[in-house]
Amino acid sequence: MADGSEVALRELAEYLADDMAACNRAIVERMDSPVALIPQLAAHLVAAGGKRLRPLLTLASARLCGYQPDATHQRHVALAACVEFIHTATLLHDDVVDESSLRRGMASANAVFGNKASVLVGDFLFARSFQLMTDDGSLKVMNILSSASATIAEGEVLQMSTQNDLSTQIDQYLEVIHGKTAALFAAACRVGAVVANREGAEEHALESYGTNLGMAFQLVDDALDYAADQAHLGKTVGDDFREGKITLPVLAAYAAGSEEDRAFWHRVIEESEQRPEDLDHALRLIEQTGAIRITLDRATEYATAAREALDIFPPTRLRQLLQDTASYTVNRLR
Amino acid sequence: MADGSEVALRELAEYLADDMAACNRAIVERMDSPVALIPQLAAHLVAAGGKRLRPLLTLASARLCGYQPDATHQRHVALAACVEFIHTATLLHDDVVDESSLRRGMASANAVFGNKASVLVGDFLFARSFQLMTDDGSLKVMNILSSASATIAEGEVLQMSTQNDLSTQIDQYLEVIHGKTAALFAAACRVGAVVANREGAEEHALESYGTNLGMAFQLVDDALDYAADQAHLGKTVGDDFREGKITLPVLAAYAAGSEEDRAFWHRVIEESEQRPEDLDHALRLIEQTGAIRITLDRATEYATAAREALDIFPPTRLRQLLQDTASYTVNRLR
Repeated sequence: MADGSEVALRELAEYLADDMAACNRAIVERMDSPVALIPQLAAHLVAAGGKRLRPLLTLASARLCGYQPDATHQRHVALAACVEFIHTATLLHDDVVDESSLRRGMASANAVFGNKASVLVGDFLFARSFQLMTDDGSLKVMNILSSASATIAEGEVLQMSTQNDLSTQIDQYLEVIHGKTAALFAAACRVGAVVANREGAEEHALESYGTNLGMAFQLVDDALDYAADQAHLGKTVGDDFREGKITLPVLAAYAAGSEEDRAFWHRVIEESEQRPEDLDHALRLIEQTGAIRITLDRATEYATAAREALDIFPPTRLRQLLQDTASYTVNRLR
Repeated sequence: MADGSEVALRELAEYLADDMAACNRAIVERMDSPVALIPQLAAHLVAAGGKRLRPLLTLASARLCGYQPDATHQRHVALAACVEFIHTATLLHDDVVDESSLRRGMASANAVFGNKASVLVGDFLFARSFQLMTDDGSLKVMNILSSASATIAEGEVLQMSTQNDLSTQIDQYLEVIHGKTAALFAAACRVGAVVANREGAEEHALESYGTNLGMAFQLVDDALDYAADQAHLGKTVGDDFREGKITLPVLAAYAAGSEEDRAFWHRVIEESEQRPEDLDHALRLIEQTGAIRITLDRATEYATAAREALDIFPPTRLRQLLQDTASYTVNRLR
């Protein structure tokens, strides 16, 4: 992806290049295990890359709060790796749950190594993330990250419960994306403030930034599933559609649809009865009803709130980069 | 099961009846979630019962070390629940990985709720277990339990790597069962000593007891898969056989087999080419070669080591019950 979002993230990653390099080293190091399949599968994940957005948020938040690591003890780096492990574990399990064969444009781990390996290596990474927290030794950090892990799982279960259900309310959908995405963004930012001993207004502001950024990010992601071409997106367009996942584009198109349109949505989403031409028809209905615009308007509100949350910090280059990240997250699709 | 092992465990559970009741309450309470499917699936697991052997070990170890909880703060109870959550999470994921349809004689959670729910609720229970550790607040306890969680996942991955592979060495098999079973038994016992502030010889003795008991327990479990009748066992006899799982009964029968026998094992285990009559033939070969006896002799060695590890404690009724548990674990099959 070479769109606006990528540019902002690349600049942020460049600004924090030393921290990111240390974080990548920590990730590779702590993924190691005498059980050969674990580093093998881990290497596949590392090769697949990904933007490492969540660890970047931890590193940036710590630095924004003035954190100064000493040479031997880089808490923000270890915790950034920890956040990435939690995220990678949920990705591995998501791909099993969704039966996805593509992830970031590459064959997903479950497609290459099988579902068993993905479930078990996901468990290993969860456990390893808790070891990283324990090594850090702050009860507050552990509380933030273990609560976020529980919230993620709850969000995923709730998403499963709403699957194929067009009577899902928008509030329930927002609760799902808060759990599955925004909670970890928020936790990633908060721990940055905590390692810098800024446990008051700054911690609160960064939590708000992370939550709102995560909401915007997931809304745009859900829009992309109905709006991007496959090569550009690095994932299969229409995945959510085929799985009968309830996202805002579908809820908005359903709400604004004619009786005939609603019958269509019932058949394809609730009864999972899909024909080859149905995705194109769904894309047309989503365009006609302005469902993408509705989704992006919501995303823009969250992105604005994310930007504004950082106003309490001095206007540094780093603050600007984080605020740009929020703007560009939405502009991926505008 | 109303065999010797059950009697010893029942006596132990009765001796610790108040602690176990508190632990059961904690389990139900901390399995709760606003996401309805989580307590629903949890209720299924609670109904399925199980012996709650691992939390019992935590409670018993704490009491053996003289732990006296105050009325408001029962660390041993919360950590016993935590241990059970880790165990239940791994069971949920195991059943998905193994595609099991029976667990403790009842339909397994994945058979009733589907694989997706089992993966995600397993993740929730893992996360909840880490919240319980965090609430406890001891870094040493967190270190013991998060390391055990990583070791369990490594053991499961190693087991997957040895599946269908008759060239697996007995040492590798022992490493698998140490990871998948003995590590959590050991951790469950150790944290009992830690909450009682007995972090020297007693902690070491209880760790040794737990490790050896876990090894004995898993060896007998693996023997049962080729030796018990289904109603008695509460699981399908021949599950391991059908999955091509490498356990000591198979390794011992293979090692002692004729050329013809080895060709049979190659076909059914390595090539997974099984016919309806093969299980009976496998059971005959296992009996002829004394493979069950070989497995139980190993189990007896571990059980003896477990019993002896507790000799440093005063000869109380509780010590006797824990030592009996070790003996009866093996006597399940004698």
